[in-house]
This record gives sequence, C-alpha cells and structure tokens, in this order.
Amino acid sequence: MATAKTLGFVLFDQFELLDVFGPAEAFGIRDLDGAFRLVMVAEKSGPVASAQGPRTVADYGFDDCPHLDMLLVPGGMGTRREVENSVLLRWLRERASKAELVMSVCTGSALLARAGLLDEIRATSNKRAFDWVVSQGPAVKWVGQARWVEDGKFATSSGVSAGIDMALAIIARMLGTEAAEKDAIGMEYDWHRDAAWDPFAKIWGRA
Amino acid sequence: MATAKTLGFVLFDQFELLDVFGPAEAFGIRDLDGAFRLVMVAEKSGPVASAQGPRTVADYGFDDCPHLDMLLVPGGMGTRREVENSVLLRWLRERASKAELVMSVCTGSALLARAGLLDEIRATSNKRAFDWVVSQGPAVKWVGQARWVEDGKFATSSGVSAGIDMALAIIARMLGTEAAEKDAIGMEYDWHRDAAWDPFAKIWGRA
Repeated sequence: MATAKTLGFVLFDQFELLDVFGPAEAFGIRDLDGAFRLVMVAEKSGPVASAQGPRTVADYGFDDCPHLDMLLVPGGMGTRREVENSVLLRWLRERASKAELVMSVCTGSALLARAGLLDEIRATSNKRAFDWVVSQGPAVKWVGQARWVEDGKFATSSGVSAGIDMALAIIARMLGTEAAEKDAIGMEYDWHRDAAWDPFAKIWGRA
Repeated sequence: MATAKTLGFVLFDQFELLDVFGPAEAFGIRDLDGAFRLVMVAEKSGPVASAQGPRTVADYGFDDCPHLDMLLVPGGMGTRREVENSVLLRWLRERASKAELVMSVCTGSALLARAGLLDEIRATSNKRAFDWVVSQGPAVKWVGQARWVEDGKFATSSGVSAGIDMALAIIARMLGTEAAEKDAIGMEYDWHRDAAWDPFAKIWGRA
C-alpha cells in the first residue's frame, strides 16, 4: 500500500472531544490498514484539557511538528479565545499552505476563517454558533445548510458528530467508496452520505 | 441542580478512541450543565495509548481513584490482552459493586463478562467480534441484535458509535427525554432511540 498520510489534529485548551475523536476514529480505524498516521499537535506538546475535562497528549508542539499532509481543526468553547491567538493563526496559515487537505469540525472553521484561509471559499460550521462564526470571516462563502462542505483543499463540517460524516466522505474520495463503507461498518456507524442532509440547520433557523 | 455524578472511563493500552469519547461527549456536553463529572482511570495514572495512536491522560490509577458513581468500559484491540489482566478484573468487580451504573461499549463487555459481572445478565457487544466476546462469558445472556441492552445496573452497547446512543438512552433515563434531546441536538447527532435498531447484526450474521 501507499505511504501513510500524516494527519495532524490541532488541540487547544477547551477543544471539543468528539470534534477530534470522531474523525480520529474514522481515519485511524484498523480497517484502513494504517492509511493515515494520526498526530496530535498543540502550541506546546504535552497534555491539553478538552472542554469536557479529559486531557489528550499533544505529541508535538508547533515548533517541532513534522510535515502534515492533512490538518484538522476542531471546535469547542476554546475557539472563542483562540481566534485572538496570533501564534496559532500564523501556524495554521503556514501549515495549511503546505498541506493537501485542511479540515475543520464545528466552530473550528472560525479559526480557519480568522487565519484568512477561507476567504471566497464555501464553508460551514456549527449551526447554533453560526452567527458568531460568520462574524469571524465576512469574506467566506458561508453555507447555512450542509452536513459538511468540500471546496478545493478545504473541508468544513457542521457541529460535533458531523465531523464523522465529513471524514468518511474524505476517505471515500481518497481511498474509494468501498473503503469508506468498510470503515462505517467497522464503527457500526449510520453514515450520512448526503452533504445536504442537515436537520439541525432548521432547528437553529439557518434553513 | 443535584450534585454531579462521577463517571469513570476505564483506559488501557489500545483502547478504541470513539468507544470512550462518543459517550464522553454525550455525558460531558455543556448542555447538561455539569450533571456528570468525567474522570479517566487506568491501572496507573498518566498517558495511555489508544488503538489509533493518540494518548489520553488517565487522571487516576486504580489505587488512588475516587468513588465512581458510574463506570464505562470501552473496547478496542487491547481487550484481547486485558481479559487476562487479573488486576483490572478484580478492580472492575470491586468498583462495579459500589457503582450505580456500569456501562460498556463494543468489546468492553468481554471485560465485564470475564470479571463475572454479567452472569445471567442480558448484554450485547460488537457484532464482528461477537463469537470471541461470547466465549469470554458463557453464562451471559448475550443478545445478538441490539444497538444497546439495559439490564438492571448494566448497560452494554454494540460497536464503537453505538456507545453514543446508549449514553443518550441513559441520559434520558436519568435526566429526562428533553435533556437527552437537547444533548443530541448539541452534538448535531442523529440519535437512534430504538435499542432494537441494529443493521450491523445482519451484516455479521447475528440476526
């Protein structure tokens, strides 16, 4: 098989657990035979506390992080502070320019937007926090109803569990539909394959 | 509001990420206003590597872990080794006897079964690994088709993502349906409320 792609998950204090670990499960499941190597990255290496409490170890800091083929930025209450973190935003700009694919889950798209990476790009986010996210990137082509949106090398998903469907769509694109189906079955997950499926947009008045 | 319940997640080398962090998101989401306090526990405190690579910090070791009102045991390839770990099995027996609710996701039920906790109890597990799990507890009343099974103080779920549906069912039981609905919307999750919904049982010849 081909060399594993290195996928970096960007952690920060009060990141949302499932935003990271839904996609981490989908990309890291053994059914994919190690097609993706998962690494956890934060401004500084070591334990990072999630919004729910549990701490995950950042394998690398921004300074010693190896090349990332792919990048995923989660959401969570921590994004409210991180949109002002110029060190993080600069690092995102630098790494996104070198990566072949840049993903976000939930309010993670606010960080990509503030880094200026999504200008003129179609993107989505959590539906409850949508107004705040939109305010972080007025030049972004925000999509109010979508489970996830793919535009060029960017893929942005709606809230929390939507990251799993985005991950499976990306896996289908990179490794084929059969691999993604095997993955979903391995997770015993009810895969939503339709990017337009988004009942939550209606609940929060975005559709 | 009532005092928070302490919910302990049992970690071991090669635990499955989503088995832990799906339910951790559901129980820990801010929509529940801190009704559950999440703690990570392992034989020894400190970083524990998942089956997918990323490491989570065990807040406590078995020796210094505070009282747990609720317990959740994940699956993952590590269970194949842990079923022989007498220290873990003894600790599970001791803590399960004091807890008001004991949960498992995926092959985590094999550990509960080997600890002798599920004898004469109705329980389920991952459908692909079902034969192996059943062999770990011949006296358990295994259910071959179920998203999750609740029996007395035990709740066991099918593979990986099924833990999220089990968690929401438990939240509905403890805090009411409205709280669970709010939780599912917060996660933008397509909640399966029917414990009998299990298309994966058919795929693996269990139904």
